[in-house]
Amino acid sequence: MTDPLDTTPDRRPGGRTARVRTQVLDAVRAELAEGGHERLTMEGVAKRAGVHRATVYRRWRDVAGLLVDVIDAAGEIDWQPPDTGSLLRDLTALNEEIQESLVVQPSFAVALMAASFHSEQAAQAQTQLWTDRYAQCEILVERAVERGELPAQHTDARSLLIAATAPLYHQLVLLRADPDPRLPERAAEAAVLAAAAGAFTARREESV
Amino acid sequence: MTDPLDTTPDRRPGGRTARVRTQVLDAVRAELAEGGHERLTMEGVAKRAGVHRATVYRRWRDVAGLLVDVIDAAGEIDWQPPDTGSLLRDLTALNEEIQESLVVQPSFAVALMAASFHSEQAAQAQTQLWTDRYAQCEILVERAVERGELPAQHTDARSLLIAATAPLYHQLVLLRADPDPRLPERAAEAAVLAAAAGAFTARREESV
Repeated sequence: MTDPLDTTPDRRPGGRTARVRTQVLDAVRAELAEGGHERLTMEGVAKRAGVHRATVYRRWRDVAGLLVDVIDAAGEIDWQPPDTGSLLRDLTALNEEIQESLVVQPSFAVALMAASFHSEQAAQAQTQLWTDRYAQCEILVERAVERGELPAQHTDARSLLIAATAPLYHQLVLLRADPDPRLPERAAEAAVLAAAAGAFTARREESV
Repeated sequence: MTDPLDTTPDRRPGGRTARVRTQVLDAVRAELAEGGHERLTMEGVAKRAGVHRATVYRRWRDVAGLLVDVIDAAGEIDWQPPDTGSLLRDLTALNEEIQESLVVQPSFAVALMAASFHSEQAAQAQTQLWTDRYAQCEILVERAVERGELPAQHTDARSLLIAATAPLYHQLVLLRADPDPRLPERAAEAAVLAAAAGAFTARREESV
């Protein structure tokens, strides 16, 4: 959202515009986590952020605009996938991060998923964020192939990553199961065993 | 909801009470699928069902009551898990059923999931329905063990079933991916390969 050619003081990174965005998005996250997207209002966010209502309306327009920007901001974080030296440990670490984000009370991640059922714009922003994150994680699979942990044939990294992580979302978000501290490792292990046995390979893809 | 000791004409199965419930729940499903739970109202349901508003209020009390009963009714259907003679084909058939329910437009299943984010009662009813369905499917794993398709050690059937089905929900509901006609079989296959390699077994459970 920053125009690199705009060098007026309040547009510089770290300037007033950036500060206002930080304040407003912090307020959105707090309001979402506390009351869910249903109680998210422009007024509530402006008040919590200590920013003029008019500023919030001018810059974000409506609640969907706030949701999209808070999701975009999550994508701007310099997140790096785990790099532990083994695919099983990498996927376990990834799953532990996911589990933590889903079970923390209140959960911003779950509030965003709920919001995405009701705002097409928020849903699109969230789908984009997830697409980017899974793409970033493909290096886990590439490294595992290089280390000889996976068959040399092309493994469909995204399918493997979905298989490893989906049980976390299914159990915790949709089935609302109690968190199981062993689930991150067990789901990772099942995906690694399946991959080592040749699931997710191009050969199988073509044979279907 | 039927009292077996109540034999007055309009309480008999197939009598007026049962007919009213059928009409009202059909209306709830139609309204949910068309407008989502946000536009579900007692008035809209009564009107569509052709039933007096007072009857709907007396019997279901509020929108949450309607949601819970429509989920309970889904659990009353005489659903049987697939029995094709192979675990891979059973799980593929199960996944095809799930995929169909999630991609049909409008999807009653997706509308219910959205509703469960906003009604604690609906969420509990849905969790119960899913628990029952997964319990019903455990026989798929038992049969596979009997046929020698899985290791003789105890396999945790529920974990295997979650691993097989979770990618469908994750891809179609949360990631909003386009339906992939190969996904039901590929997700089933990954779970079967993982199980055959010893994932989901008690031994591994204990060793963690």
